[in-house]
Amino acid sequence: MTNSNNTSTQAELEKDQSFINVIEGRRSVRKYDNSAVISDEEIREIIAIATKAPSSSNLQPWRFLVVTDAELKAKLLPIAYNQEQVADSSAVIIVVADLEMYKHADTIYTSAATAGYLSEELKDKMIANTTTQYSALPQERLKEIAVFDSGLVSMQLMLAARSKGYDTVPMAGYNRAQVIELFNLSERYLPTILLPIGKAATPGHPTTRLPVDEITFFNRF
Amino acid sequence: MTNSNNTSTQAELEKDQSFINVIEGRRSVRKYDNSAVISDEEIREIIAIATKAPSSSNLQPWRFLVVTDAELKAKLLPIAYNQEQVADSSAVIIVVADLEMYKHADTIYTSAATAGYLSEELKDKMIANTTTQYSALPQERLKEIAVFDSGLVSMQLMLAARSKGYDTVPMAGYNRAQVIELFNLSERYLPTILLPIGKAATPGHPTTRLPVDEITFFNRF
Repeated sequence: MTNSNNTSTQAELEKDQSFINVIEGRRSVRKYDNSAVISDEEIREIIAIATKAPSSSNLQPWRFLVVTDAELKAKLLPIAYNQEQVADSSAVIIVVADLEMYKHADTIYTSAATAGYLSEELKDKMIANTTTQYSALPQERLKEIAVFDSGLVSMQLMLAARSKGYDTVPMAGYNRAQVIELFNLSERYLPTILLPIGKAATPGHPTTRLPVDEITFFNRF
Repeated sequence: MTNSNNTSTQAELEKDQSFINVIEGRRSVRKYDNSAVISDEEIREIIAIATKAPSSSNLQPWRFLVVTDAELKAKLLPIAYNQEQVADSSAVIIVVADLEMYKHADTIYTSAATAGYLSEELKDKMIANTTTQYSALPQERLKEIAVFDSGLVSMQLMLAARSKGYDTVPMAGYNRAQVIELFNLSERYLPTILLPIGKAATPGHPTTRLPVDEITFFNRF
């Protein structure tokens, strides 16, 4: 976003927030205005929108570790191989996958029952079944579910940020062991991407995509 | 969408396509109008929007196996434990992760260079570096990247469908080995979700989410 937005008409602002403009306006941005600030409240609002994403059995295997503290960001910089967006963005959201997501089945289905979306009987059945089924899954399969669902929520996180005029860049390239150590994460929690968020200083560069017909297969692969 | 949309004003249609309405209007729908048809062209359009998603090194480790053939859908039904949305939706998109995505580095970066987004020199360097780095990764890490990125594109696929008036439901519960066998997929390709797409016969039921403050952590986990 540029300063010209300060004088945008309401119609222009609404146009900026159309679905397709948000999708097409999202680019991976690596140069940030290091004087821009994002409030904790704005981050909470973006996360609230993002977490409307679906997840396997609605178990929401995602947590958000938001790094805004300057000293911590300085520690994160070498861990992310000195990629400057970690230092210059307004915050870095670490999307953390919960590998034991089924332990929240009770809380989640009780909340749905309290809201009137599930009967007490169905709630009890779902808690029992989900706990039994997921706890019997191999660790690798639980990881796959948590990582896939973290991908779902991360996409919505980037789009929600864009809809509010912020840019992001998903980063898979960092030293995971050092992130785990820095924040003292237990084995239950797996950092997926680092997601710097802030105001672009330079627009993201355009990229191409494989043609739809080369990646789409009708009825046979 | 209901028939009343046929008489919607343009303003109402545009409102339907605002970013937040698309996000909030997406629900997991399990009851479909089995007479509704989605054209191959509409599916291509939805995939074109979805694949604007980012991916690790832009390697786009996703493929879309679109099942519209009635006989094939009938075969898929028991594989998906007879969940009726597989039979009643207009199509089932199987989102397939490409575990050897780096083999497309040449095609992808050449395309970016042809479009003028990369110099020839940078293109050659990126192809060499990406191929070296990714081919050295353990299989488990490649799978994690492909699964996460498939999550990103799947989220955009659901939203793009909703923006065009279609509903979806992401399904992780099916017999994966039988899907691999039915479509004769090689070890390179991993089916992630089945995604039925069509017109809702009954709206998806509302669900709750964990409160933002319980899943968001500022500067310490």
